[in-house]
Amino acid sequence: MSRAIAGPEIERLIQLLAKLPGLGPRSARRAALHLVKKREQLLGPLAEAMAVARERIVVCSRCGNVDTRDPCGLCTDPRRDDSLIVVVADIADLWALERSGAVSGRYHVLGGVLSALDGVRPEHLTLDALVARASEPAVKEVILALNATVDGQTTAHFITDLLTHLPVKVTKLAHGVPVGGELDYLDDGTLVAAIRQRTGF
Amino acid sequence: MSRAIAGPEIERLIQLLAKLPGLGPRSARRAALHLVKKREQLLGPLAEAMAVARERIVVCSRCGNVDTRDPCGLCTDPRRDDSLIVVVADIADLWALERSGAVSGRYHVLGGVLSALDGVRPEHLTLDALVARASEPAVKEVILALNATVDGQTTAHFITDLLTHLPVKVTKLAHGVPVGGELDYLDDGTLVAAIRQRTGF
Repeated sequence: MSRAIAGPEIERLIQLLAKLPGLGPRSARRAALHLVKKREQLLGPLAEAMAVARERIVVCSRCGNVDTRDPCGLCTDPRRDDSLIVVVADIADLWALERSGAVSGRYHVLGGVLSALDGVRPEHLTLDALVARASEPAVKEVILALNATVDGQTTAHFITDLLTHLPVKVTKLAHGVPVGGELDYLDDGTLVAAIRQRTGF
Repeated sequence: MSRAIAGPEIERLIQLLAKLPGLGPRSARRAALHLVKKREQLLGPLAEAMAVARERIVVCSRCGNVDTRDPCGLCTDPRRDDSLIVVVADIADLWALERSGAVSGRYHVLGGVLSALDGVRPEHLTLDALVARASEPAVKEVILALNATVDGQTTAHFITDLLTHLPVKVTKLAHGVPVGGELDYLDDGTLVAAIRQRTGF
């Protein structure tokens, strides 16, 4: 922005908002203006929610999730299944699975996937902690819920090797047709996987 | 969201972020996660910037702009031309014009445009204040910088009628080919206007 228009306070707000994923300089200006117009309904509550989040949110030292306590609510919930660990690359993946309600076990957030291009090596991920958790006697199965990308699958293979000496079953997510998906729009790899892994009707 | 995943604090942050223009529920989650991950670099500063904005930003009682003082910096800047008032529908339009650097005068924010469909009537806009400002002896010209939409142009005509008894020149923005625009992609109305309002080379 070449000229400061509405004072340094709004400029600073715009600059910070523009750092959010999904907001560019133009939409950050629009968001800032919206906030300023809705001062009592939105700007105030959001400022408070952010202050609270900053104050209280911590990373769970056990699974890598974020919560207001450590260990997090998912790690301490007595109704969840201790025999199952679901390994995800990122907290966003954990949230997606948790929204689906499909996971009854615990989670483990790797903090990324191995990537030669991005220079992500095994020591950058929480692999030691995962091996330690998978070694606990209660654990029977580790589900590798990683993206079906080259890096995700490389990481899955790497973890499988790491856990091979442990008495746990290592599984991965099924490939196949997305629910509601149309065959005509699917790529060949997905169709091949869906045919190969077909199930009884 | 069917289940609360990472505690009520993050859920509240996500819900509030989703109210920003340009962010839906999914991108609000992504933004919240980004904020939580960048607690010191982004979440803290943004919480503070919002608290400051909430505390200090006011609407200028003269022109309708937002600033930390009333009258705002644009209204009190002694270098600006008191003989010219640029009328805009919204603060966003004021910011766009101010970024362009094309305006040397003062602004007047209407707070919208007349719209039969949306039920916006003259009394909802700051028209009385505009007439009062345009009646000041220093004012020589009022530029109607309104959108080239039906509602914008209706509003422009309405204002022209309001100001007709005053000794001020009322002008509007030129229509024509956008700078960098290609003729082939322009609509007929713009091309007709660009031909009609052609200028000397």
